[in-house]
Amino acid sequence: MSKQESRQYNRRNTKKSQKDGIVESIRMIPLGGLNEIGKNMTVYSCRDDMFIVDCGNSFPDSEMFGVDLVIPDFSYIIENKDKIKGIVITHGHEDHIGSLPYLLKEINVPVYATKLTKGLIENKLNEHSLKNLIEINVIKPGDRIKIGCMTVVPIHVNHSIPDAVGLAIESPAGTVITTGDFKIDYTPPQGETTDLSTFARYGQKGVLAFLSDSTNAERLGYSASEKTVGKSFESLFDQAVNRRIIIATFASNIYRIQQILDLAVLHKRKVCVSGRSMINNIQMAFELGYLKAPENVMIEPEQAKDYEPGQIVLITTGSQGEPLSALSRMSGGTHRQFSINKDDFIIISATPIPGNEKMVTKVVNGLLKLGASVIYESMYDVHVSGHAYQEELKLMLNLVKPRYFIPVHGEYKHLKRHAILAEGAGIPADNIIIGNIGEVLKIDKNGISVEEVVPSGQVLVDGLGVGDVGSVVLRDRRHLSQDGLVVVVFTVDNATGELLSGPDIVSRGFVYVKESEALISEARMAARSVIEKYKDYDYKDWTVIKSKIRDQVSTVLYKKTKRSPMVLPIVMEV
Amino acid sequence: MSKQESRQYNRRNTKKSQKDGIVESIRMIPLGGLNEIGKNMTVYSCRDDMFIVDCGNSFPDSEMFGVDLVIPDFSYIIENKDKIKGIVITHGHEDHIGSLPYLLKEINVPVYATKLTKGLIENKLNEHSLKNLIEINVIKPGDRIKIGCMTVVPIHVNHSIPDAVGLAIESPAGTVITTGDFKIDYTPPQGETTDLSTFARYGQKGVLAFLSDSTNAERLGYSASEKTVGKSFESLFDQAVNRRIIIATFASNIYRIQQILDLAVLHKRKVCVSGRSMINNIQMAFELGYLKAPENVMIEPEQAKDYEPGQIVLITTGSQGEPLSALSRMSGGTHRQFSINKDDFIIISATPIPGNEKMVTKVVNGLLKLGASVIYESMYDVHVSGHAYQEELKLMLNLVKPRYFIPVHGEYKHLKRHAILAEGAGIPADNIIIGNIGEVLKIDKNGISVEEVVPSGQVLVDGLGVGDVGSVVLRDRRHLSQDGLVVVVFTVDNATGELLSGPDIVSRGFVYVKESEALISEARMAARSVIEKYKDYDYKDWTVIKSKIRDQVSTVLYKKTKRSPMVLPIVMEV
Repeated sequence: MSKQESRQYNRRNTKKSQKDGIVESIRMIPLGGLNEIGKNMTVYSCRDDMFIVDCGNSFPDSEMFGVDLVIPDFSYIIENKDKIKGIVITHGHEDHIGSLPYLLKEINVPVYATKLTKGLIENKLNEHSLKNLIEINVIKPGDRIKIGCMTVVPIHVNHSIPDAVGLAIESPAGTVITTGDFKIDYTPPQGETTDLSTFARYGQKGVLAFLSDSTNAERLGYSASEKTVGKSFESLFDQAVNRRIIIATFASNIYRIQQILDLAVLHKRKVCVSGRSMINNIQMAFELGYLKAPENVMIEPEQAKDYEPGQIVLITTGSQGEPLSALSRMSGGTHRQFSINKDDFIIISATPIPGNEKMVTKVVNGLLKLGASVIYESMYDVHVSGHAYQEELKLMLNLVKPRYFIPVHGEYKHLKRHAILAEGAGIPADNIIIGNIGEVLKIDKNGISVEEVVPSGQVLVDGLGVGDVGSVVLRDRRHLSQDGLVVVVFTVDNATGELLSGPDIVSRGFVYVKESEALISEARMAARSVIEKYKDYDYKDWTVIKSKIRDQVSTVLYKKTKRSPMVLPIVMEV
Repeated sequence: MSKQESRQYNRRNTKKSQKDGIVESIRMIPLGGLNEIGKNMTVYSCRDDMFIVDCGNSFPDSEMFGVDLVIPDFSYIIENKDKIKGIVITHGHEDHIGSLPYLLKEINVPVYATKLTKGLIENKLNEHSLKNLIEINVIKPGDRIKIGCMTVVPIHVNHSIPDAVGLAIESPAGTVITTGDFKIDYTPPQGETTDLSTFARYGQKGVLAFLSDSTNAERLGYSASEKTVGKSFESLFDQAVNRRIIIATFASNIYRIQQILDLAVLHKRKVCVSGRSMINNIQMAFELGYLKAPENVMIEPEQAKDYEPGQIVLITTGSQGEPLSALSRMSGGTHRQFSINKDDFIIISATPIPGNEKMVTKVVNGLLKLGASVIYESMYDVHVSGHAYQEELKLMLNLVKPRYFIPVHGEYKHLKRHAILAEGAGIPADNIIIGNIGEVLKIDKNGISVEEVVPSGQVLVDGLGVGDVGSVVLRDRRHLSQDGLVVVVFTVDNATGELLSGPDIVSRGFVYVKESEALISEARMAARSVIEKYKDYDYKDWTVIKSKIRDQVSTVLYKKTKRSPMVLPIVMEV
């Protein structure tokens, strides 16, 4: 179905249902977050109304050379911009808010978010000079947000950031529930347990479709409470008497930061903060009342030197070993304010995200070499996941009792495992769908099906460029990264075709030229012989000649080095 | 101390000890394997005799663009080539034999290795056209290999490859013991348990220094027996009735392959093999008697189609998700012989090595999408480590009772943890040394100390080039990979300095040029204005002008794109 046709189809369909009292449907269009971890974004559509849930980014994989950020393809949104009534955000993590500035440059619609989430979004919009241009409405669990024919009701859930919500989407076709990112923490350090009663109430009334967080669908049992981290910290504070305590954790995990503050107060330590995102988040969390500490507990990093090591707790970024983070600089001895020594007791309160293990190891090695004690990974319970494990997922399925189940937020292996769990929990296999981004899922009481496929995918952000780095540019970067570049440049008389200068060879990233003069001169000879061979032909067909030069020079270089640099012939006509 | 001085120092020292009957010393010079996982290589030196233990490679990290292999710096070996009497290999893994071809092109000395290890080395030497040029002596546990004033005695150990040995090095200064890579398997599927008695016997006689495998020094308890993998396979074979079983594992884990063969025979399945290294290793292991199966069990991949899925076991490479491996091609639907479907039951019998998690996930996702059942990671006990856990390490320390302890084979964090274990096991902290590659450790009954530092480090292999990719080339590849390249080329009259053509802009990996004409033309203008400004000056100082062009063009491009491509100005003189 072409886009044109599908739009007509949609319109026809909608009119019919309104006129004839035919079965109402709701459509769910995932534009990210399925078959990937990151860039969560889903459009809900009913009659002529649409809204968006979440607008996250993901991070470039190792093949996306030079790319800063990956955002969803917004084509479908822009095509339907007149129907989009708003954006509802479930919580303030990057994979749920990171693409907002890019989307809001394209469409200006109201954003709905809880208080802390709003604070995090505003910080982000400021960086993109979008401050005060966007309407952000504060929502809270139990609110009823009317968006056209649909009503969105936030439901409190536990996660590794405060103020996270799931959503009940009440529509003429029935209720759709999405958990957002969640876990079930019966002893949260602050606030309430995930609002199981409300999920159950919807379950009793009847839920058409249920979307649930699959991140930890592979993990057996229950996730541990955030409070277990506090308990571990307690015993570590006891161990670290007279030593400076440095804790690296995620800047958005306000609960954990509050637990650290409480322990610092108890042990009469001052707290200072390092790392830009940590400083920003802690400041905002204090302003909004999400963090609390007696006066004079927080000090500036410069003041730390006025205290004994045993009187200090330093909270910092870098728990993933990020090369430019504060902890990474400390481990390399290049941090401006803090130098590490044997008086330091360092806790890395995080688990390496797959792909980051080597970076974390590098930081741990560096800190240990400087003499510090380092607590990392599974040495103590210094980290818990923010995502539900298998038993929690089953509990939620049991409460919500949906007609249709759609596992979301995960790679295929996570979605598949969650689907198997759901089948085990009694949902018929035919009522479970593992979706793909871009597939429009039409859901009504008669069934769930893929109605059409709309544009979706990855848009790469590099510097100021959004989407201008595509497959050709990436392929070239990849090629250049592997074996470098050899430029073959020569000047010809554009009247006679006579070679006026060159061919010269300039290389970068290929070999160390000073030690490879013979090789370079052989490449030059290969290029020259092509030019000479062709000088009697129609000398203006440079495309052919350049391609021959590329072949000949590549062959010579490969034979001698078994490397294939990019060969770039350039002809200058005078 | 300069190299010159240190050589003199060594010579003096040796003479003195021989003449005066002064305390004899043994020197240990690690050239790899400390503060890293990989390229294990250690030189032992006593009086005027030297030999090498192991000669492995490591693999490039993500910053080593285009590099195929990392080998140790051999400078110290080449400097001392007349003293080197041989190379003793502990087992046939790449991180212990992978650099042999490169070393043996520099020095031709006898190699000592157990039978299977010899087979693996020969395969490797053949690939480098070194077949029959090198003397490889087969050794076995209990042999006494006399190397000058030292005698090397191999000791049987368990590891994830057969025929692994530790070494006792008896010298005039005392006995040094190195475990090689080891674990303690009380129920090995084949052969004996690690020869604890012999380690104990040396311990009773007195061991001067002990080097022990630190890979799993962070893991609590005991490693599981290889036989537990066989048990898991048994129950998985029962589950997979009527389905084709595909097992991916390490090509060198002959024990595991034998266990698979035995189960295949029991379940009346035929076995075929895919993946070059798997085919080579299995063939060699059959020839040398390390693998056994009744006739007609092994079939060619082409024959597999003549059997029902339930009659086939396919053993394949790709357990680490390597993009070109057989399993990876199957998961992408591009394998020439095997296409995956719901009749397939796939077991990935390995744990992802840190850094490989994402590649393995990609393969698992692909296989699941094709409908196969996939057993991976911690779902069943389908993999055990080949390296000793903490309790095994303590046991070994307890048996060997060395005067000095040197943890080896690990990153700093592993070595440090092993050192802490050793202290707990009763070795005084002063008698434990965490070494660095290149540091010459002088060991005698009076003490252990770093005597001098010799050249050591990483040599990068890229194609046929060994060591010609250095920091400049890598820096350029890195730069090119991030934002690509912009060539600014122009032709001038070398008599008048007049601009004859250009400046032309050619870019690769920077932006998609067709969509960025305005940007490119702005860069061209910036370059032109520099050329025009300088045409009245001494026009031959192209270095200055090129540098100005680079600055100006970079500034323009950064301002417009926030990217910093490599800018490469080229001037052609006519």
